[in-house]
Amino acid sequence: MGSLRQQERAAQLRQFHHQAPLLVLPNVWDAASARIIEQAGFPAVATTSSGVAAASGYNDGQNLSRDLLIDALARITRVVECPVTADIEAGYGNTIDEVLQTVQAVIETGVVGINIEDSLKQQKDALVDSSYQVELIQALCELARSMDIPFVINARVDVFLLAIGEPESRLEHAIKRANAYLQAGADCAYPIGRLERTTITHLVQEIHGPINIMGGFPELTLSELAELGVARVSLADGVMRSALGHIRTIAHELREHGTYASMNADALSGSELRSLFS
Amino acid sequence: MGSLRQQERAAQLRQFHHQAPLLVLPNVWDAASARIIEQAGFPAVATTSSGVAAASGYNDGQNLSRDLLIDALARITRVVECPVTADIEAGYGNTIDEVLQTVQAVIETGVVGINIEDSLKQQKDALVDSSYQVELIQALCELARSMDIPFVINARVDVFLLAIGEPESRLEHAIKRANAYLQAGADCAYPIGRLERTTITHLVQEIHGPINIMGGFPELTLSELAELGVARVSLADGVMRSALGHIRTIAHELREHGTYASMNADALSGSELRSLFS
Repeated sequence: MGSLRQQERAAQLRQFHHQAPLLVLPNVWDAASARIIEQAGFPAVATTSSGVAAASGYNDGQNLSRDLLIDALARITRVVECPVTADIEAGYGNTIDEVLQTVQAVIETGVVGINIEDSLKQQKDALVDSSYQVELIQALCELARSMDIPFVINARVDVFLLAIGEPESRLEHAIKRANAYLQAGADCAYPIGRLERTTITHLVQEIHGPINIMGGFPELTLSELAELGVARVSLADGVMRSALGHIRTIAHELREHGTYASMNADALSGSELRSLFS
Repeated sequence: MGSLRQQERAAQLRQFHHQAPLLVLPNVWDAASARIIEQAGFPAVATTSSGVAAASGYNDGQNLSRDLLIDALARITRVVECPVTADIEAGYGNTIDEVLQTVQAVIETGVVGINIEDSLKQQKDALVDSSYQVELIQALCELARSMDIPFVINARVDVFLLAIGEPESRLEHAIKRANAYLQAGADCAYPIGRLERTTITHLVQEIHGPINIMGGFPELTLSELAELGVARVSLADGVMRSALGHIRTIAHELREHGTYASMNADALSGSELRSLFS
């Protein structure tokens, strides 16, 4: 039986998809980044698989082992109060049963939501059969019932990201998959990619449920995405790539000038650092 | 028997204390930050205990368990080619034998240098007896011989940091401890604190061996520290606090303006991120 606390967090996270304001998730990769985002007032924390992998020394694409992924998620859920949703790529499995084992272990860390991809890690740039993904999502819903933790399923639709088929066919393809996944029990559909405003408008009109859009591109602010009817915006590994770019900037200043201006500009103080975990 | 590779790295790291240019260590906390610093051209990588703890969700002060510390160090040594030196606080032990067990496990991850503090974690703001620290350093040298890995010992002198005794007594006290530690076999003495130029000048004159100074303060650039005769400069958790401050800046811009300028300004590209681990 799930803990009351975890059930509540799962329900909270689900509710955020159905009410204003827009659910914005500046994806995190470790305990410290998670606490910074929570302290800044975001009501939930999402992980980036790419960032979590990089922090441990691996590239994205399920190169980080399932055990190391679970450890990383547990370090995050230990320190945040708000709901945590995890990017688990395609679920680390060749069969539905294997993916269910992954998800069970993920939820047992305290996580209350998952992103699940419909592309194949073994076969680059290919999607799984829609029917397989539907069956997987149904099985995940059954797992949530059996664990008594109504975790949130964010179903990735990788049609745009992987540039599947002719460009003019992608919108319809993505809509079809998104609706199939929502029908199967997913809570949100995530057609990932850098999408134009008109594409997003069509997706919102034709998909029968909450939609996650990848933000971070200057042409569409968070307000504009909210106005388009998007329910959830995530930033993929944008914050992680930015933090690493900032470290690089500091390093170059040290090498070239021997000074610390970029390091000291907006740094947390020592006591602010300690406040993250008190 | 130590691996040839690890022996060479230890010798390299030691050599960096005895030749120009100044050894500058912008301390890292995970595999990604370590690779950024290595890629930026720094010849060695040092960890910050405070940063490593924060990345895992703990405050500094040996709150991160020894096992989690070892895991974190192994994730770093797996991906960098250059020598790695680890901040292991006071060595996680109440006896010399316990500290030796820690250091053996640390060196077995591939690390080739350690920082060891002369203050007590159990008893806040107090130093250990100088004779205990001397005995510990001698035992560490013996461990290096028995492991056949000549790892570098950076002996912290916490007199200034903890404001031990009357202000006018600290310089002499620090010099006395530093020389005792170097005499016992330490490779470098690290009187940590925000020190004035004249204090550093005295330390360099009176301490008979390489000195590590904490940098990052605008009043003393790296060139100036090199001119003063310092051998090694580390930045403690400065880079980590700056990276977290940068994440906070991104978060505030997202909350207040719904835009991504600070996130996108100097970010690594996706391919730059992937290049860290290829």
